[in-house]
Amino acid sequence: MPEKRYLFTPGPTPAPPEVLQAMSAPVIHHRGADFRRIYEECLLRLKEIFRTENDVLMFAASGTGGLESAVANLVSPGDRTLVVSSGAFGERWAALNKAYGADLDHLAYEWGETPAAEDIRGRADGAKVVFLTHSETSTGVVADIQALAAVAKEAGALVVVDGVSSLGAVPLETDLWGLDVVVTGSQKALMTPPGLAMVSVSEEAYARLGTAPRFYYDWEKTRKAQAKLDAPFTPAVPLVAGLNVALGLLLEEGLEAAFDRHARLGRACREGIKAMGLELFSPDEERSAVVTTIVSPENLDSSRLVAHLRDKHGVTLAPGQGHLKGKVFRIGHIGYYDIFDITSALAAVELALIEFDIAIERGVAVGRALEAYEGSTRV
Amino acid sequence: MPEKRYLFTPGPTPAPPEVLQAMSAPVIHHRGADFRRIYEECLLRLKEIFRTENDVLMFAASGTGGLESAVANLVSPGDRTLVVSSGAFGERWAALNKAYGADLDHLAYEWGETPAAEDIRGRADGAKVVFLTHSETSTGVVADIQALAAVAKEAGALVVVDGVSSLGAVPLETDLWGLDVVVTGSQKALMTPPGLAMVSVSEEAYARLGTAPRFYYDWEKTRKAQAKLDAPFTPAVPLVAGLNVALGLLLEEGLEAAFDRHARLGRACREGIKAMGLELFSPDEERSAVVTTIVSPENLDSSRLVAHLRDKHGVTLAPGQGHLKGKVFRIGHIGYYDIFDITSALAAVELALIEFDIAIERGVAVGRALEAYEGSTRV
Repeated sequence: MPEKRYLFTPGPTPAPPEVLQAMSAPVIHHRGADFRRIYEECLLRLKEIFRTENDVLMFAASGTGGLESAVANLVSPGDRTLVVSSGAFGERWAALNKAYGADLDHLAYEWGETPAAEDIRGRADGAKVVFLTHSETSTGVVADIQALAAVAKEAGALVVVDGVSSLGAVPLETDLWGLDVVVTGSQKALMTPPGLAMVSVSEEAYARLGTAPRFYYDWEKTRKAQAKLDAPFTPAVPLVAGLNVALGLLLEEGLEAAFDRHARLGRACREGIKAMGLELFSPDEERSAVVTTIVSPENLDSSRLVAHLRDKHGVTLAPGQGHLKGKVFRIGHIGYYDIFDITSALAAVELALIEFDIAIERGVAVGRALEAYEGSTRV
Repeated sequence: MPEKRYLFTPGPTPAPPEVLQAMSAPVIHHRGADFRRIYEECLLRLKEIFRTENDVLMFAASGTGGLESAVANLVSPGDRTLVVSSGAFGERWAALNKAYGADLDHLAYEWGETPAAEDIRGRADGAKVVFLTHSETSTGVVADIQALAAVAKEAGALVVVDGVSSLGAVPLETDLWGLDVVVTGSQKALMTPPGLAMVSVSEEAYARLGTAPRFYYDWEKTRKAQAKLDAPFTPAVPLVAGLNVALGLLLEEGLEAAFDRHARLGRACREGIKAMGLELFSPDEERSAVVTTIVSPENLDSSRLVAHLRDKHGVTLAPGQGHLKGKVFRIGHIGYYDIFDITSALAAVELALIEFDIAIERGVAVGRALEAYEGSTRV
């Protein structure tokens, strides 16, 4: 039998069969009625999922392309900006700001810490833009964006949020929280393969565009085209078709139900991991519902654990990034993901640790995960 | 019966069923062995198709993203550059150069003209980069890139070529002709849906990088990652899988055979169009093997013709772009395309013109096209 494959990473994430099927439809032209129907529905669904009345701009790009669009459109050389980071993706905001010549103030927490609103009070004064990361995929921390954004807005800054791994998984209220720009990608909670970046942009952000060179990621160009259900450059037709199906599935489940599911999946994963006697690196709290980061047992390089599971058992977890390489491993639980994915991931970790001869509590993780999960779904 | 659809535009182009099928495979992680196998093969096949020993960099983006990468990596503000244009895509080079603050010399031919090497002699002197368009998709002109590049190289400039609709359809010798940068997209002769841009970069180009801000399109970042079979940002996994299958099909056919097929398709299309009594806008020459542009009959707005065929018959041709809107229509014949696509396209044009009550030669176009096609394939 060919080895079965299991994808338990925080992106790309598995896509539902309906989505994959939509992607394999014959190619259609992006200016014909067949595509426009899909495109219009998809753009409307995005607004609903972003919870915004703003335009949601779509780019054929990875999530990072969407992040760069925020810097390229808002930051002129020498502009004061504030980046708040506590992991690899927050640091990407800093790298982007440096690449565009910002006068950058970088509030860099230790990886794994949770940014606090008090820390940016005062520090956001005079910044044109404050860059935040909602779900820090490298550590599992989900920040309190509402509180952070409130302080930044008070200081008169534009608020730009990396919502790549959070949108659709945990509550994110673009308009209610006054988020000027929210960036996401197709390949996380939106259950579509990678290749699309989506960016919501507020009127205030459009009113304060910068002067950095840009063309492909130019927001005004894209906004103008989308207003006529067009795109300035050939869109990634099959990915848009797939995304539209995925967004339909997400809205059918309901956003609140999806948030609840992700919270319960996170809880189940954490309880299972702790039951094995392993230590959590990501916070043991409800908000951490996107990815669970686990400290690798002493004397076991986590990259070896991840490689072993992938090469011997067909199970893909995520290793540590940056200076956490070798020290932690990560189980993603976003998107097309249910409790049996959690129990499979836990079983895989348990099996691998036994094979590495690591002393753990055996035979309890899955049971504890089920208990934690069912707590809120009694029939 | 649901209406059958026919896609006869110069991009996106139809994708073979094998390609679509590869795209609908379950999502795999881009850092696992399953993807690396595909990625490595795909990157090697690209080098073979670009006919280069240089790296071919891959971006999740439309073709224009690849074009922008050339300007962002090579052009610093104030750099002298020369853009040679004779249609919409050549003018895109000019717009990109302006966006990046180049000291631009724009040699702008009338749309539909063919650039001549003599015209850039002298004019390329002192330019850091000369930007050329191989196949001008808006008009159907395929330029003599070898001759143009030779003059630009003599003047000491880097040569950057838009090969988006030409690579894989007409001869393009990246190394032999000394082309420093060639840009293409997945959605033309490479028979894959839109969403990937590929860029070959010479050592000389790497040695003369500019200072403009860039991150997502940074060549060195991508080159470094690809050297380890990695990507700096999550690649569009299913599109890469589809592209790899498509490139395999193209290499199986053989590049020379593909060039010959495209030349014969172009010839058949032109002969069929002329037999109807219609006037060609694109040159009536062998090199024009990518897209045939046709002057719309007097008193018939070509956009109406295109809309009629699309809405009433399920046949998608391309309208005129820019100031050719309403005046011409275009039949693409690149990629997954054979003689029966040409005969269907011609039959569709004939039917529509009859329905618009335009006086044409009836019943001869398909016969003439078959004659022109078979000329070189006698058994």
